[in-house]
Amino acid sequence: MKLDSRNLTLLTDFYEITMSNGYLEHGYKDTIVYFDMFFRKIPDQGGFAIMAGIEQLIEYLKKLKFTEEDLEFLRQKELFNESFLDYLRNFKFSCDVWAVEEGTPIFPYEPIVTVRGPAIQAQFIETMVLLTVNHQSLIATKANRIARAANGRPVMEFGSRRAQGYDGAVYGARAAFIGGCSGTACTIAERDFSVPALGTMAHSWVQLFDSELEAFKAYATTYPEGCTLLVDTYNVLKSGIPNAIKTFDDVLTPRGYRPKAVRIDSGDITYLSKKARKLLDEAGYEDCKIIASSSLDEYKIRDFLLQGAEIDLFGVGERLITSRSEPVFGGVYKLAAVERDGDIIPKIKLSENPAKITNPGFKQVYRLYEQGTDKAIADVVTLHDEVIDDTLPYEIFDPVHTWKRKTVTNFKAKKLLTQLFNKGICVYESPSIQEIKKRCIEQVSTLWDEVLRFEKPHKYYVDLSESLWDLKRELIVRNKQ
Amino acid sequence: MKLDSRNLTLLTDFYEITMSNGYLEHGYKDTIVYFDMFFRKIPDQGGFAIMAGIEQLIEYLKKLKFTEEDLEFLRQKELFNESFLDYLRNFKFSCDVWAVEEGTPIFPYEPIVTVRGPAIQAQFIETMVLLTVNHQSLIATKANRIARAANGRPVMEFGSRRAQGYDGAVYGARAAFIGGCSGTACTIAERDFSVPALGTMAHSWVQLFDSELEAFKAYATTYPEGCTLLVDTYNVLKSGIPNAIKTFDDVLTPRGYRPKAVRIDSGDITYLSKKARKLLDEAGYEDCKIIASSSLDEYKIRDFLLQGAEIDLFGVGERLITSRSEPVFGGVYKLAAVERDGDIIPKIKLSENPAKITNPGFKQVYRLYEQGTDKAIADVVTLHDEVIDDTLPYEIFDPVHTWKRKTVTNFKAKKLLTQLFNKGICVYESPSIQEIKKRCIEQVSTLWDEVLRFEKPHKYYVDLSESLWDLKRELIVRNKQ
Repeated sequence: MKLDSRNLTLLTDFYEITMSNGYLEHGYKDTIVYFDMFFRKIPDQGGFAIMAGIEQLIEYLKKLKFTEEDLEFLRQKELFNESFLDYLRNFKFSCDVWAVEEGTPIFPYEPIVTVRGPAIQAQFIETMVLLTVNHQSLIATKANRIARAANGRPVMEFGSRRAQGYDGAVYGARAAFIGGCSGTACTIAERDFSVPALGTMAHSWVQLFDSELEAFKAYATTYPEGCTLLVDTYNVLKSGIPNAIKTFDDVLTPRGYRPKAVRIDSGDITYLSKKARKLLDEAGYEDCKIIASSSLDEYKIRDFLLQGAEIDLFGVGERLITSRSEPVFGGVYKLAAVERDGDIIPKIKLSENPAKITNPGFKQVYRLYEQGTDKAIADVVTLHDEVIDDTLPYEIFDPVHTWKRKTVTNFKAKKLLTQLFNKGICVYESPSIQEIKKRCIEQVSTLWDEVLRFEKPHKYYVDLSESLWDLKRELIVRNKQ
Repeated sequence: MKLDSRNLTLLTDFYEITMSNGYLEHGYKDTIVYFDMFFRKIPDQGGFAIMAGIEQLIEYLKKLKFTEEDLEFLRQKELFNESFLDYLRNFKFSCDVWAVEEGTPIFPYEPIVTVRGPAIQAQFIETMVLLTVNHQSLIATKANRIARAANGRPVMEFGSRRAQGYDGAVYGARAAFIGGCSGTACTIAERDFSVPALGTMAHSWVQLFDSELEAFKAYATTYPEGCTLLVDTYNVLKSGIPNAIKTFDDVLTPRGYRPKAVRIDSGDITYLSKKARKLLDEAGYEDCKIIASSSLDEYKIRDFLLQGAEIDLFGVGERLITSRSEPVFGGVYKLAAVERDGDIIPKIKLSENPAKITNPGFKQVYRLYEQGTDKAIADVVTLHDEVIDDTLPYEIFDPVHTWKRKTVTNFKAKKLLTQLFNKGICVYESPSIQEIKKRCIEQVSTLWDEVLRFEKPHKYYVDLSESLWDLKRELIVRNKQ
């Protein structure tokens, strides 16, 4: 992984700083607090999301420091006293951080990041925790949908030019790879994040030469091994495919090469791909793949395949790199507890909307897997030191309709929150991106088909342990009085 | 402006590099080509978009160079020959670049960036031209819609935590300011781009203290001058506003300060704001502003104001920073001409879809303003050296329904494409962000109300000059044969 050379310390909402200054002034500097990041809604009405962005979060936290330039900037705001600026000058990150590992399916209302530490620090990092995890989880989740629609065919991420900013493109390519893409068009994503980068030609290549045939032949001469031709600059069936075949015949075959692919980037992809397949097969190029690209997403891909489109690889651009159908991953970061005299005092945020009431306290998440099938049964949010003993039957229940109960036996329980930082020291080594991608494939395969559906997926159970449920109820009642 | 320290040279689609290598091999290295960036659809079915991102594009082009690390990375792809890598090692940007200035309203099908230069160079920069201008124009356009809905009330950009990557947040805040926001919550955007950053407190501040009243009083003590209180942690009308008033009475008034504002971040904003206004007025705090934030966009804001909401300032987050309703600005970069023996040979990209046929040749864009009202009448895309003489009547016509004609008299013609680079040397000094913002306000005010409408705005005329129309038609006919 390439380290980001920028000083992003002040990429934070200004209120984190006004509050931090206030915490110092009111004696809360060393008060230990607990914050959870969680989300409420899965994008695209999907059945699950994919966790991503942890590697970049770790990088940010590791190098978090205030430069003199940062301090001078803050001084000029004329809001902060010098003792606060001194605190920032000597800032040393000392929080504990837990998170769900990248590539893991995640669900609403469970903590996916938990931060424990001095109030100023845990507060200050809110914006970057959210920004990093929201962005990459959004794109990984979308990529996973698209890859599943492609049903085993490779999907390439092609969207840099429509990304929202530079690292929208670069970290987006990283997250897309984690979620299921096979590679990217974004060159720097390979240099910095080992995401395989590929690319061949644009329409401009074809236009620049005097004819399409000349352009194809020139390309085949330069790249006989990986010869992929873009066949829709003029007319796919009347000109693009015939010229491609002529190029394969005249340039590749005599030199002992086989063509790699043709790419169709416009028009009725299903119809064109079937006709193109036939023409290529008749010419003896059954092994020449067909690549489709043109504002694709999981719905278009599903439809293409349903109608028998002859496509071997998909290039997906703007609808993936911005997650166009839902470009927001709505993770939030909420205070869950405060330590006082060594005790953990759970905190709750109330709301008239029951879905907006937070889960209080310092927590852990267990995922229960069925023995034998290895399928995920439910997640259970517990208090941090609770243990789910998977050698005994365990009763789970719906936290709203509490009469819905089920006793689980013959299961394995696995903790989802892994420690990343211990008193400010990173204790976690990020796996390689290939390992993260592999985890994603393995963990998605633990979900039942019902959860994987695009349309009205089954709602996966995220339950609360009896102790946590009791605590939450008590706090609601007490605060409502 | 803060310079971006990253080496982003390889933030490019890989096919730009494979094509460049091919151009070198086939003798097109020094062939002078012309590329246009243009877009086809205005986001949100709006009447116009706002140009932004030029300052960052200039920065990228100024420092474009290949490091040895970049070259070594490319070498390992085993696709490129050493003479190409040598070319890149000695790469010196030498293109001419023209663009519409930031803050200017822009319309579909007119060139907004034109690049003239050696094929490899003009091709290579495609991804970054598009990425930078697409992203910032998207956000500036959305911000302008939201600011117009707010009808004179300030709008703050609050979206960092939901942005798509770090510079999704930072450059997004810059673009939002250009488009019409008054400031941002993103601290680093002030340090680096002079976008005023503001912020006060989150729910966590209120939760951390033993009571809401205690939290408010602590805040007012620390920030008596800019005292803004978040009043919806528990219950806006029963607790938040009464506690705020008590804080103003007990902490601010005795010390001679007036409150700044209260912020409502959930619930029925219209209802709550009216009730809150009444309570504040009755308590003698008529000057205390009310701020609303809660997944806002131009439609919600318009509805609030239509129903008489008492809101003085809006904080807009995820729906602005991602342009949620349309997160893609679909700018494309197409070959328009090639020089051969000193002549400009226009190039066209055909399509069965007439809207996808490009405008050929080296071009300029004129905006015609009505004398007296200063309202914009139409844009006319011309050949680059054509002059529209605004002392004479000028006939414009619809490029599709060519019988729709109109003779314009008493007008002023202004060229929209300004030169940024001359043979690789930057000849343009980016205005300050305040000047860009001012241009945006001035130029949007030249549009008729019909074009400003959210619902079914009038389609602003983007016509072709007679010469360009003739050229285009000739090329279509010739290429169709």
